[in-house]
Amino acid sequence: MNHILRMCDLTDEDLYRLFDKADKAKENKIHVQQAFVANLFFEPSTRTKMSFEVAEKKLGLETLDFTSESSSVQKGESLYDTVRTFEALGANAVVIRHEKENYYDDLLEGVSIPIINGGDGKGEHPTQSLLDLYTIYQEYGYFEGLTVVIAGDIKHSRVARSNAYILNRLGANVSFTGPESWQDESLVFPYLPIDEAVEQCDVLMMLRIQEERHQNRINNQQGYLQQFGLTVDREKRMKHKSIILHPAPVNRGVEIASELVECSRSRIFQQMSNGVYIRMAALEHVLRGGTENEKTTETSTHLSR
Amino acid sequence: MNHILRMCDLTDEDLYRLFDKADKAKENKIHVQQAFVANLFFEPSTRTKMSFEVAEKKLGLETLDFTSESSSVQKGESLYDTVRTFEALGANAVVIRHEKENYYDDLLEGVSIPIINGGDGKGEHPTQSLLDLYTIYQEYGYFEGLTVVIAGDIKHSRVARSNAYILNRLGANVSFTGPESWQDESLVFPYLPIDEAVEQCDVLMMLRIQEERHQNRINNQQGYLQQFGLTVDREKRMKHKSIILHPAPVNRGVEIASELVECSRSRIFQQMSNGVYIRMAALEHVLRGGTENEKTTETSTHLSR
Amino acid sequence: MNHILRMCDLTDEDLYRLFDKADKAKENKIHVQQAFVANLFFEPSTRTKMSFEVAEKKLGLETLDFTSESSSVQKGESLYDTVRTFEALGANAVVIRHEKENYYDDLLEGVSIPIINGGDGKGEHPTQSLLDLYTIYQEYGYFEGLTVVIAGDIKHSRVARSNAYILNRLGANVSFTGPESWQDESLVFPYLPIDEAVEQCDVLMMLRIQEERHQNRINNQQGYLQQFGLTVDREKRMKHKSIILHPAPVNRGVEIASELVECSRSRIFQQMSNGVYIRMAALEHVLRGGTENEKTTETSTHLSR
Repeated sequence: MNHILRMCDLTDEDLYRLFDKADKAKENKIHVQQAFVANLFFEPSTRTKMSFEVAEKKLGLETLDFTSESSSVQKGESLYDTVRTFEALGANAVVIRHEKENYYDDLLEGVSIPIINGGDGKGEHPTQSLLDLYTIYQEYGYFEGLTVVIAGDIKHSRVARSNAYILNRLGANVSFTGPESWQDESLVFPYLPIDEAVEQCDVLMMLRIQEERHQNRINNQQGYLQQFGLTVDREKRMKHKSIILHPAPVNRGVEIASELVECSRSRIFQQMSNGVYIRMAALEHVLRGGTENEKTTETSTHLSR
Repeated sequence: MNHILRMCDLTDEDLYRLFDKADKAKENKIHVQQAFVANLFFEPSTRTKMSFEVAEKKLGLETLDFTSESSSVQKGESLYDTVRTFEALGANAVVIRHEKENYYDDLLEGVSIPIINGGDGKGEHPTQSLLDLYTIYQEYGYFEGLTVVIAGDIKHSRVARSNAYILNRLGANVSFTGPESWQDESLVFPYLPIDEAVEQCDVLMMLRIQEERHQNRINNQQGYLQQFGLTVDREKRMKHKSIILHPAPVNRGVEIASELVECSRSRIFQQMSNGVYIRMAALEHVLRGGTENEKTTETSTHLSR
Repeated sequence: MNHILRMCDLTDEDLYRLFDKADKAKENKIHVQQAFVANLFFEPSTRTKMSFEVAEKKLGLETLDFTSESSSVQKGESLYDTVRTFEALGANAVVIRHEKENYYDDLLEGVSIPIINGGDGKGEHPTQSLLDLYTIYQEYGYFEGLTVVIAGDIKHSRVARSNAYILNRLGANVSFTGPESWQDESLVFPYLPIDEAVEQCDVLMMLRIQEERHQNRINNQQGYLQQFGLTVDREKRMKHKSIILHPAPVNRGVEIASELVECSRSRIFQQMSNGVYIRMAALEHVLRGGTENEKTTETSTHLSR
């Protein structure tokens, strides 16, 4: 079974194959067998859910849309039973965002359709990581020797750790920048002051401040921008070809000055477009796996309609 | 007009024709003209709503998805006006779940598209009944002489009564089992203790405890399982080929021991798969009726797009 | 860029071309290139949202469905960033209903896909206006010399003003009728008592009482009907061929006697059917514009899938 759950499960070969598929997706050149995909989002999300939906529709897949507010989950059903239900209803793959870290551990034994992790609590968000990496690859064509600085709320991010490890594995020089209280001491990468970071980096990978996960809201937003964010002045000191990434939604005037959101080195909206292509690639990856392995379970009959 | 509102409206011939169509649906061999179906669910439901949605999409139908939370119903619109609106918008059939028993009585005169009842309060839930019957038929190929025990919350169930009457009509021996306070004295079928029931039955048709419809929640869940539910010990005493049904979502450890949910005699997830096939059959049944009767109203022009 | 934002932006030629397209839509004779349309409704709506959805599906378009409850808007994202996100995700056009009057002013510079205004606060609701006009045109084939009376809550309506001006521009004689406290003194059209209005009009265009926008609810509904509404008695005194319009949902027994909602001169449900056709025409209008203008932005690659 081909799942996409954590970045560390993907080999370098897997990554480059996915980037290649994403290129093809952009040109509408990948295709899958007709199938149903259930999108189970237990936490609110515009961007990721919509991105998967567009990806699915562009691939000609049928989507089953689940919102936890109006569902049996209110009746106390377990995640396992919900996923098995969608499988029994005919889903050929499932995309899950859930507040519980490693929620998928409860599913792997009993569920026989591929799972794409759309975010597991403070755990990972692999398709976001993939689209970040793909956007860098699209820009430079390589990772070896690139200086990548990951900026902001390292501790609460679901992509900082996995992005750092994978980029390092791919040959990039990875550093962090951000407030001391948001540093993650379990990570071995160096911390730089923001003013050094902007001058050295080829890629400034900003993180969203996950206000909704903090106990105390940011009291002094303007102060944050000046001390740790990307101001207009700092952007001017960046290297000629270096680029800015941000997973969005952007807190304008907090992580980044509002007028820089669409500046020439910003790839923020391009990341969203890339997100669709990389998710098309991811869906193709897991669904192809299901087909190749010659499934013997009853659910294989649901593939066609 | 072909509606599906109550089980007693369906003849034996109708039932066997629907089972036959469901067999064909499983093999993707039934087809309908392109049409729009509005799914109007005024009560929360994952299973039934999703099941109809999959059924509609597998038939190539377009779905109009309605959720009462974000709608004009908040503006005090009557059910009749809402349904007439969907008809005017182009719906060729409508699936309705509504908290009011016999809600459809207000619709039959003015609405000129077929209605499938997706549950009317404490009334009926005919497509659930149909999938229960279909699952038994799939197993045995007949009803005559089968011993079927319906177990649990008889009084609050929307399928217990209609299933009992139809199964009886089809030649099965029907009994009930369950706590005395949930017995329904208006029904003429015998009550058995659970320990006798499990040994005699060919089909153990469990009902979900509709906690959300009870004033008092179950205080002693473990006690319920031991006294009235299907324990591991009781399952061992069931006849060799007898099967277990449950409409789900299952209250694990209450109606049934958790480890039995996917045991070899459980047809619980198969029921969900069957639900899609039987709803495809039901949709074909009502839409075909609409076509055959040569509709003379304006809405017939909406059939094609 | 072809947007549809305000009625006054549309020339007479535009209007008649849209009516012509709506006629073709009714016969399923208009087609557009495969594209994605995002429906962003920040206020509840069954009718308008569903109407757009049916229109999109009948045109073979893919829809992206947005509900503000379960989205990043909860995370404080601006409307501009939300719309740009949908554009980056691949939307080729966007339909927006938003509580802020002229919300589109913030979007026109940065957004490069066409916008259809689905209602801007107390501003306008152009596709509702278009379907009202289309329904009159369908009936009479002309506007010149028709007496149209707009009845009810003039002040709080998003169609009263624009309908009055456009109908006047097209040659109709426009008057208003309704309670003095709901008159709009900025409008130059005469006010008539309801009893004169019903006898003179060719078209009685009723407005919905937007209770949800009033500070004080209507205390005396029966009184309103008798004083200002369309009673059974008043309907009898209408001219032989004159018709009744209402945007719905109808407050039965308030603006109009309940038994008149589906009377022979009522075009209320026909308006809903026409709404689908006019929105198909509107979508074709804006998407065709986008194609003709040879877009040079990256988004053009999203058109096909």
